[in-house]
Amino acid sequence: MTASSTASSPAASETGDPLLLTPGPLTTSRTVKAAMVHDWGSRDANFIAINRSVLTRLVRIANGSDDWATVPMQGSGTFAVEAMLTTFVPADGEVLVLINGAYGKRAKRILDIAGRRTVVHETAEDTPPDLAAVEALLASNPSITHVFTVHCETTSGILNPIAQIGALAARYGKGYLVDSMSAFGALPIDVQAMHIDAVAASSNKCIEGVPGLGFVICRVEALKRTQGNATTLVLDLHDQWLNMEKTSQYRFTPPTHVIVAFHQALDEFDAEGGVAGRGGRYRNNCRILLDGMRALGFRPLLADALQAPIIVTFHMPEDPLFVFAQFYESLKARGFVIYPGKLTVADSFRIGCIGRIGEKEMRAALAAIGEVLEEMGMVGQIEKTA
Amino acid sequence: MTASSTASSPAASETGDPLLLTPGPLTTSRTVKAAMVHDWGSRDANFIAINRSVLTRLVRIANGSDDWATVPMQGSGTFAVEAMLTTFVPADGEVLVLINGAYGKRAKRILDIAGRRTVVHETAEDTPPDLAAVEALLASNPSITHVFTVHCETTSGILNPIAQIGALAARYGKGYLVDSMSAFGALPIDVQAMHIDAVAASSNKCIEGVPGLGFVICRVEALKRTQGNATTLVLDLHDQWLNMEKTSQYRFTPPTHVIVAFHQALDEFDAEGGVAGRGGRYRNNCRILLDGMRALGFRPLLADALQAPIIVTFHMPEDPLFVFAQFYESLKARGFVIYPGKLTVADSFRIGCIGRIGEKEMRAALAAIGEVLEEMGMVGQIEKTA
Ligand SMILES: Cc1ncc(COP(=O)(O)O)c(C=O)c1O
Ligand SMILES: Cc1ncc(COP(=O)(O)O)c(C=O)c1O
Repeated sequence: MTASSTASSPAASETGDPLLLTPGPLTTSRTVKAAMVHDWGSRDANFIAINRSVLTRLVRIANGSDDWATVPMQGSGTFAVEAMLTTFVPADGEVLVLINGAYGKRAKRILDIAGRRTVVHETAEDTPPDLAAVEALLASNPSITHVFTVHCETTSGILNPIAQIGALAARYGKGYLVDSMSAFGALPIDVQAMHIDAVAASSNKCIEGVPGLGFVICRVEALKRTQGNATTLVLDLHDQWLNMEKTSQYRFTPPTHVIVAFHQALDEFDAEGGVAGRGGRYRNNCRILLDGMRALGFRPLLADALQAPIIVTFHMPEDPLFVFAQFYESLKARGFVIYPGKLTVADSFRIGCIGRIGEKEMRAALAAIGEVLEEMGMVGQIEKTA
Repeated sequence: MTASSTASSPAASETGDPLLLTPGPLTTSRTVKAAMVHDWGSRDANFIAINRSVLTRLVRIANGSDDWATVPMQGSGTFAVEAMLTTFVPADGEVLVLINGAYGKRAKRILDIAGRRTVVHETAEDTPPDLAAVEALLASNPSITHVFTVHCETTSGILNPIAQIGALAARYGKGYLVDSMSAFGALPIDVQAMHIDAVAASSNKCIEGVPGLGFVICRVEALKRTQGNATTLVLDLHDQWLNMEKTSQYRFTPPTHVIVAFHQALDEFDAEGGVAGRGGRYRNNCRILLDGMRALGFRPLLADALQAPIIVTFHMPEDPLFVFAQFYESLKARGFVIYPGKLTVADSFRIGCIGRIGEKEMRAALAAIGEVLEEMGMVGQIEKTA
């Protein structure tokens, strides 16, 4: 498909806003946002029931049993990750951190600040961890207490082998902590089968809520042993959980509107068929994007087998006619917000496949990209020199 | 006024929700909530401009000059307080904590968890700090580096003398940190005249936004000296500030909808005449509430001179016919959500004067309270035995 044959009109979401083809905040449905036009008392029974339903449903999405609990954390996804790491890893703990992008690096930084010892296994941003090397580290470092990994490393969009890593963590008797921020709800995760002690995610990724709430799904037996570990009051998951068990309430004011919108988003998630339905739509978006971008001459960073259907990194075209700032602004003027790259291995930009977007919006984005290339004098296509 | 003469119909906010006569989340305007029915890219120019305007206007409300900056903090007010304390107080610092309620106690707990030394001056919940005792502590403890106090201690609703405490902190060369959560925007605060280094507040109190964002207004010279103090990544105000200075962006996903609503709330705050207008409405609410409740036979905890126009604590009536759970539920059925007490000095409940409520709503609440007393067999009035 070359876009020059299709005249694109400015695209828009259900509420007339530009489409956010980014790693989040994302485009959400009109009805999710409409849930926020009411006020709720945070200690009132109606809100408490909504909150409880949200927490229970999140456990089910991760295939948790009654032995699991969702502990919400006000703030963003990173607040949930820092809460998970500083609550689960005791002062004398040691974490094997698997890094292949910015979010693995961030976990390492969080542990450094907390004074927790780490062992790092780092691979390039387009390369999954080496499982043999991971096993060797586990075998030779008995002081390691936990393994941390990122499910979909949003830096590149790479899918990491969380099940295999979990099997290794279990074999060596280590706790297992996962950042599934950008994958949760779109890619299957099974906390039981994957031996996961805690997995962090947030309201505004694949569940398609609005930003403002992180959460950590925890194995209760493991959580119970974390009392006194936390380095702060607000990020103490044990205290947050215990208080909610006792009173059904948040210790500190929750973002009521965000949580009610998240509840609506979960209804819409269920209506779409849960992880299978949501993931299916995103896989379709991703396939359309990859096919269309390749037809326009762009090259994705990752091999298809490593590509999660969340966000796709493309190499920056080498053609001097291609100016990214102009590309970005011209796409935005057409109603599409994309994302600069965050990679060290290659100059790149990223286009997300997640949020309230489908085939129609993806094809409209491709048409707009073709037009912009033409506008930049590239006749709707990149010179295929690669 | 006895309410038995007034038939009350269920009251409601502009969007038909029960009125929240609590310390927050509060009733907000229809237009504040309506600002949330759009999606915004968090790294996009439009959102960045809105965010910048929010931060600048908050400095002005506190009478800060260009030497001051607002550092936003995702989460709730407590996140901002913990960020302020753990960023400003270095590992070898020592804080004089003035306590006369739950929020002063919470600050002490935060400092204990962070391993910061404290000296405590505690008074009863209905008693302001003893300024002579505070001065004596400052004079005899040269190791004290900071003084912390709560502006309006929402536990009782008491107004603490933040200007006089600031003068003492300045005289003894100490840093001065204030929790103005429930007062900010309604009671004047002057960071320059009061010698304040940092003051914490949040989106969902007297500015009448929705919950999800805390913030700390900081003297930049003091903030600059805090590098490396923080005990976490997410609560590091110095890092948050530096990154925003450099990139205009949040380090971690901001609650975009909450911030856009906060911007709208600031527009409405300005339209009402800023602190003078907003505070004036609340003072009027508070006066109507006190007069009406006294006429019904209730006794406020605080002497009028100590009462901030934010939230009023009433003694629980001793009459065995008065059952608080029934009182609460019957008021809720009539569209008014009140708040249980949180005091140790007296069995009590609280009624807030803040949020999108005025004279009409306050009088409707009093009418409903009179009806409920009658329903409980107290003929619309409490036996005046006190
Ligand atoms: C894998 C991963 N971890 C953590 C985060 C951080 O989330 P937040 O920006 O909400 O703090 C992100 C955000 O994109 C992410 O993709
Ligand atoms: C004086 C004061 N400080 C701190 C807080 C805590 O704020 P949040 O519940 O938003 O964490 C409150 C909340 O009412 C407060 O009134």
